[in-house]
Amino acid sequence: MLQLAMPVNLAPPDKLLPVPGTYLACLAAGIYKDRRDLVLIGLAEGSTVAGVFTKNAFCAAPVTLCKAHLQETGSRYLLINAGNANAGTGSQGMDNARLCCQMVAEQTACEANQVLPFSTGVIGEQLPMDKFEAAIPQAATSLSADNWNDAAETIITTDTIAKGISKQMNIGGQTITITGISKGSGMINPNMATMLAYVATDAKVESKLLQNVIEQATDMSFNAITVDSDTSTNDSLILMATGQSGAMITDSNIAEFQQAINEVCLHLAQAIIRDGEGATKFVTIDVTEAKDEAEAKTIAYSVAHSPLVKTALFASDPNWGRLLMAVGKTDIVDLDVNKISLWLGKTQLLESGEPAANYTEALGQLEMAKEEITIRINLARGSANTKVWTSDLSHEYVRINAEYRS
Amino acid sequence: MLQLAMPVNLAPPDKLLPVPGTYLACLAAGIYKDRRDLVLIGLAEGSTVAGVFTKNAFCAAPVTLCKAHLQETGSRYLLINAGNANAGTGSQGMDNARLCCQMVAEQTACEANQVLPFSTGVIGEQLPMDKFEAAIPQAATSLSADNWNDAAETIITTDTIAKGISKQMNIGGQTITITGISKGSGMINPNMATMLAYVATDAKVESKLLQNVIEQATDMSFNAITVDSDTSTNDSLILMATGQSGAMITDSNIAEFQQAINEVCLHLAQAIIRDGEGATKFVTIDVTEAKDEAEAKTIAYSVAHSPLVKTALFASDPNWGRLLMAVGKTDIVDLDVNKISLWLGKTQLLESGEPAANYTEALGQLEMAKEEITIRINLARGSANTKVWTSDLSHEYVRINAEYRS
Repeated sequence: MLQLAMPVNLAPPDKLLPVPGTYLACLAAGIYKDRRDLVLIGLAEGSTVAGVFTKNAFCAAPVTLCKAHLQETGSRYLLINAGNANAGTGSQGMDNARLCCQMVAEQTACEANQVLPFSTGVIGEQLPMDKFEAAIPQAATSLSADNWNDAAETIITTDTIAKGISKQMNIGGQTITITGISKGSGMINPNMATMLAYVATDAKVESKLLQNVIEQATDMSFNAITVDSDTSTNDSLILMATGQSGAMITDSNIAEFQQAINEVCLHLAQAIIRDGEGATKFVTIDVTEAKDEAEAKTIAYSVAHSPLVKTALFASDPNWGRLLMAVGKTDIVDLDVNKISLWLGKTQLLESGEPAANYTEALGQLEMAKEEITIRINLARGSANTKVWTSDLSHEYVRINAEYRS
Repeated sequence: MLQLAMPVNLAPPDKLLPVPGTYLACLAAGIYKDRRDLVLIGLAEGSTVAGVFTKNAFCAAPVTLCKAHLQETGSRYLLINAGNANAGTGSQGMDNARLCCQMVAEQTACEANQVLPFSTGVIGEQLPMDKFEAAIPQAATSLSADNWNDAAETIITTDTIAKGISKQMNIGGQTITITGISKGSGMINPNMATMLAYVATDAKVESKLLQNVIEQATDMSFNAITVDSDTSTNDSLILMATGQSGAMITDSNIAEFQQAINEVCLHLAQAIIRDGEGATKFVTIDVTEAKDEAEAKTIAYSVAHSPLVKTALFASDPNWGRLLMAVGKTDIVDLDVNKISLWLGKTQLLESGEPAANYTEALGQLEMAKEEITIRINLARGSANTKVWTSDLSHEYVRINAEYRS
C-alpha cells in the first residue's frame, strides 16, 4: 500500500542562471553526516534585500535575529544551514545565531549585523558551533558566482528534490536575470522545520519598493499554499537585488518586474506542494465570486485543510459530500448554500445548492483519477476570487511524520 | 503496520436504564443490508425537548426540519435512521424528510411537526422511501420501554462499538434516571456523517431551562472534542425530559441536575473520541491561564488539529518542537512565548519559554508511550482554563477515510 515518495510532475531545476553580484559557497559542515548542509551567499555592495517571515509566535532564533539585522543596516551575507533549525533553543539558541553572524563578519570584514542567518532542520537541539567554526572560513574563501544549483540542493531537508527557477527579461533595453531557489515539503517537517526561499536579481530596486514587491508576490504564492495547515517556526523568503545589471526598477516598469517575481515565487511555492510530504496529487482550490478576499481564502483553506477532503483526493474518490462539508463548516455567518455551485475540473457537482443534473459518479471518478485536480467553488455573492494550492493526505504523509525518528 | 481499529479504553455500555416516559423501537428497515438501522423513540405527553445542532452551513435536510419542528410545537416522536444522511440532497431531500415525519404522524396519531427526524450515513443519496414506508408502521407497533442498549447499537455507522451511559440521582427525595446514547467516530465519516446523541430523563424540566442545560453541557463536552476538525452536516444532540418521575427541576436543584447532565454528555462525547477513526491514543489538551476562554480554546484546538502533533502522538514520539509550533501558529497577536510553560503528563518540557532543565528524551518517551496522554499548556497571562479532547492521526485514519468506498 505504501508507495515511494515522488513529487507530482516536478523535475529538478535546469541550469540556474548566475545573478551578477551574488556569490555562493556550498559545503559539508558535518551537521548532516554525508551531504552538503551549509550555504554562504555574498552580495555586492549596494544590494538591497527584503524579506517576509513566519508568523509563528515561537519563531526560531535565526528568524528573530534576521529580522533585526534587516532593519538595522544593509545586508552583505546570508548564512543558511540545513539539519538543525535552532528553534525551541531558548537564549542559548539566540547566542549561537549571533555567534554565527560574527564568524561570517570576521571572515569577510563586514559587520555582524550585515549577515542574515537561516536554519532549517531538527527543532530543540543547539547548533553544533564547532562545526560552524570550522566551516565558515572555508565557505568565505570558496564563494563562486555560478553555484545556484548546488545551493538549491544544499538547503533541502526531507525534500525529495531540489527546487529552483531562472528567468530573464528586458528592462529598458537591458537584460535582467532572476534566479530563485526554495525548500520545504511540509509547512514543517517531522522534527524538521521549514519553508525557505531565496530569490535574487541583478535589477536595481530601492529597498522599500523591493519589500513591496516581495509582499505582493508572497500573497499569491507562498501564502496561498498549504500541505498540512502547520506553520513552521523558521519560514523565510528573501528577495535580493544587486543592481549589477544597471537596470533600474521604477514606476514605468514595476508592473512587469512584479509579474516576473510573482511567476518565480509561484513556481517555487508550487514546487513545495508538488514535493509535499507524501503528496500524490497537486490540487488547486479555486474560489470565485466571494464577498471579499478574506472570505474566499477562508473557504479555500477550509477545503484545503480538511483531512476528509485530503484523504478522498488521495483515494481518487469523487466524494463530494466532503466538499460540501468543508465549504459549510467555516464560521462565515450568512453563507447561502442555495447559491453555491461546485465543480471538479470541468464536471459540475452542484448547481445553486442542488445536485447537478448531469453529474454521474463515473464523470467524478474521471476527474479525481487525475494527478492535477482543480476544485472550483462559486459562492455567487460577490466579486472576490482566490486560488490556493495543496496536496492530498496519504499513507506516506503519516509514515513520514510518524516514523521519522524511529 | 496497519492495526485493527479498537477503541481506546472503552467497553460497550452496561445495561442502560429505562427512562419512564420513553419508548423505543429498533428494527432493520433495509437501508443497510444486514443490520438494524431505524430507531423510533416515543415520548410521553407533556415531555419537553431541547436540542443543539451542527453549525455547518450545508446542514442536512433532517437537521433543518428538526430545528423547525422543535420551534413549532411540543415533540412526541424521534425517528433516527443510520445508513443514509439525507445530506446534499437538495429539495427532494427536504421533501423526503417531511414525508418521513408524516408517515410517523399517521401511524401514531400525532401531527407531523411533533416528529423530529435524524439521519446519519452516506451523503448525497436520496433516502430509500419505500423502505421507510414499510418499516415505520412496524416500528410504531413495537415501541418498548426497555430498549436503550438496542438503540445505541442501531444508530451507529462506522463506530466500532455502541456508546451509552445511565445515571440515577436523588432530587428532593425522588429518584430520577438519566440515560444517554451517542454515535460518531470522525466528526464526519468516510462518506458517512455524524455525531448523534440522545439523552433522556424522567425529571420534569421547563423547556427554556432544558435548552439552557443542554447548551451548557455541550460547551464542556461535545463542543470540546475533535477527531479531525471536520464538522458534520448532521450533528445533533437532543435532551428529552418526560417528567414521569414527578421530580421538578427548579432553581434549588438545577446545579446538581446540570452537573449530572454534564457528566453524561462528557462520557458520551469522550466515548466518540475513544472510538475515533483509527484512534490509538486518548489525548487531553489542557490550556491554563489564558486571557479568556476563546483564547484558551484557540490554542487548544490549534494543538488538537495539528496533523504533525497528531502523527507524533501516533508514533509515541515526544517531538515537542511540534507542540511549540502548534501553540505558536495561531493568530493571537501578542502571545509572549517567554511566559509559556509546557508539560507532557507530569513531565515538564518548557519553563517560561526555555527548555526545562530536567527534561530528558527518556522522560518524554515514557509519557508518550501511554494510551492516555495529557498535554498541558500554561500561558501565564490570565485566569481562563479549558480542556479539549482528541485522538491521534494514524495509518488507520487514512485507510478508513481513503479506502471506504473501494
